[in-house]
Amino acid sequence: MCDSLTPVCDRKYAILGTGALGGFYGAKLQQAGYDVHFLLKSDYEHVSKSGLLIESKDGDFTLPQVKAYNDVEQMPQCDVVIVALKTTQNHLLPKLLPPLVKDGGVVLVLQNGLGVEEDISQIVKNVQVIGGLCFLCSNKVGAGHIRHLDYGKITLGEYTPKYDPAPLTERIQYVANDFETAGITIELATDLLLARWQKLVWNIPYNGLSVILNARTDELMTDAHTRILVEQLMNEVAAGAKTSGRVIPDSFIQTMLNYTVKMKPYRTSMKIDYDEGRPLEVEAIFGNPLRKAQAAGANLPQISCMYHQLKFLTQRNGIA
Amino acid sequence: MCDSLTPVCDRKYAILGTGALGGFYGAKLQQAGYDVHFLLKSDYEHVSKSGLLIESKDGDFTLPQVKAYNDVEQMPQCDVVIVALKTTQNHLLPKLLPPLVKDGGVVLVLQNGLGVEEDISQIVKNVQVIGGLCFLCSNKVGAGHIRHLDYGKITLGEYTPKYDPAPLTERIQYVANDFETAGITIELATDLLLARWQKLVWNIPYNGLSVILNARTDELMTDAHTRILVEQLMNEVAAGAKTSGRVIPDSFIQTMLNYTVKMKPYRTSMKIDYDEGRPLEVEAIFGNPLRKAQAAGANLPQISCMYHQLKFLTQRNGIA
Repeated sequence: MCDSLTPVCDRKYAILGTGALGGFYGAKLQQAGYDVHFLLKSDYEHVSKSGLLIESKDGDFTLPQVKAYNDVEQMPQCDVVIVALKTTQNHLLPKLLPPLVKDGGVVLVLQNGLGVEEDISQIVKNVQVIGGLCFLCSNKVGAGHIRHLDYGKITLGEYTPKYDPAPLTERIQYVANDFETAGITIELATDLLLARWQKLVWNIPYNGLSVILNARTDELMTDAHTRILVEQLMNEVAAGAKTSGRVIPDSFIQTMLNYTVKMKPYRTSMKIDYDEGRPLEVEAIFGNPLRKAQAAGANLPQISCMYHQLKFLTQRNGIA
Repeated sequence: MCDSLTPVCDRKYAILGTGALGGFYGAKLQQAGYDVHFLLKSDYEHVSKSGLLIESKDGDFTLPQVKAYNDVEQMPQCDVVIVALKTTQNHLLPKLLPPLVKDGGVVLVLQNGLGVEEDISQIVKNVQVIGGLCFLCSNKVGAGHIRHLDYGKITLGEYTPKYDPAPLTERIQYVANDFETAGITIELATDLLLARWQKLVWNIPYNGLSVILNARTDELMTDAHTRILVEQLMNEVAAGAKTSGRVIPDSFIQTMLNYTVKMKPYRTSMKIDYDEGRPLEVEAIFGNPLRKAQAAGANLPQISCMYHQLKFLTQRNGIA
């Protein structure tokens, strides 16, 4: 499992948040032979006794034994700490990260939205922060039981102060290599901020409208009015990216629209969270891009409209 | 009931749409002694037998006998035809208006939104069109049974081609006088288009958000986020008015906000229509202002966002 590129062969991985995403990628890494340490909360007892069960379109597998923890202080220091919590739990990171990540190690942030790496780089020093954007369709269907439905690719990019584009380091390459060894497709981005804005082109219209209008992606694309609105919102995301000096061409937007039309009818992750009464990542996906654009003097009025609508809905439903 | 200002003392009024609004004002006019002819649809049989019952904060009254019709061809030609239909039924007007209004008579349009007088002036020639904006809180609670809860004032303004401000004519003054005789407070506006934009300052945010977010006015004003969004939307209405050369100062917006905070918790008329499965006046209240501003080269992005959201919701609920 460890090839010539790998400087540390007994690399230790920690997974913060063993849910649909963290549980899936962590299990894939352990299955490939890496030493993976899982932090859990509600599923701790079940998983420490019975391990993980992964149903996947790429083949089901079980891990009868995993290293499960319910207390970060019991975990060993790890080379790579994967943050797979929802951003709504990021207030926990100042407690979780410093004891867990090795000096000179890596924090890999598999989260949605904008600005998350910046916050994390303030919490841990002498640590490389890498951002990862997951294109994964996966659900947790029970304690320690994950169903991987589709996709799985991760786009990785190094975080640098001010998100300046960075050449690829050896460190990001060995992380990429570990994931590829575990059967995960990896794309390396030299411009993490551009990659994050690009992902928002999809997340902002579909996550937001799916909650506000109680709609699946296919309904949003079939109706002529929401079809127009989705495109207007995508253009506003591109305008936001431009305030960070990042160009998202119209061809990218057209590709996202066509791709969504061809997708199976899809209930977005934000809609699933909403339906399940879980907090929504409104600040990471809507609030942070709005504030970043506003700081550069640009208004994104339609995204702002949806931001306020979503804040109202989450407040009223007690999931803010 | 007829004073010296009145050129025709046996003035005939027609009411198109004998619901919460048309039924209330028509009943008040008949109670004051005017000759009122009511066009009805579903309530025709009941009303032609049993008349109208008005429960009103200003005093209940019954009209055991009213002149009820279910066929416009049976109605006499009238001096003043009051259009009290929802704008979603305006496709009926080319059939209803020409046989009904006297040559040289008046069509009084008691409808929401923008552009309605313009359309009507195309249907009937040699007729004065007057726009009326009603500040009325009234519901139809049964056949021929109307409950008037609050307010009642009407702002009247003459329609002129291109909505140029117009001096008050004798005709608008006698209509105003008739309503005042019937106990209705009247305000005369020399600039109908400004009055219509001013009314949209309230209607656009509250009607739209009440449907999209399933919320009453008090909920929208208590939540900090919708409170901001309401004000942003009001500012966009003012920007729309500006494209028509009409100035709505910030003080007007602040007055509307304060007034709504002090109102009793209120379910908007559009929300009531939505809950009852009736068509919504999305085109008159949102579509027409958007198109008017767009024709002048201005985008109203947040109003556009809500327009598309409302169109989606009405299409999906089969009430478009």
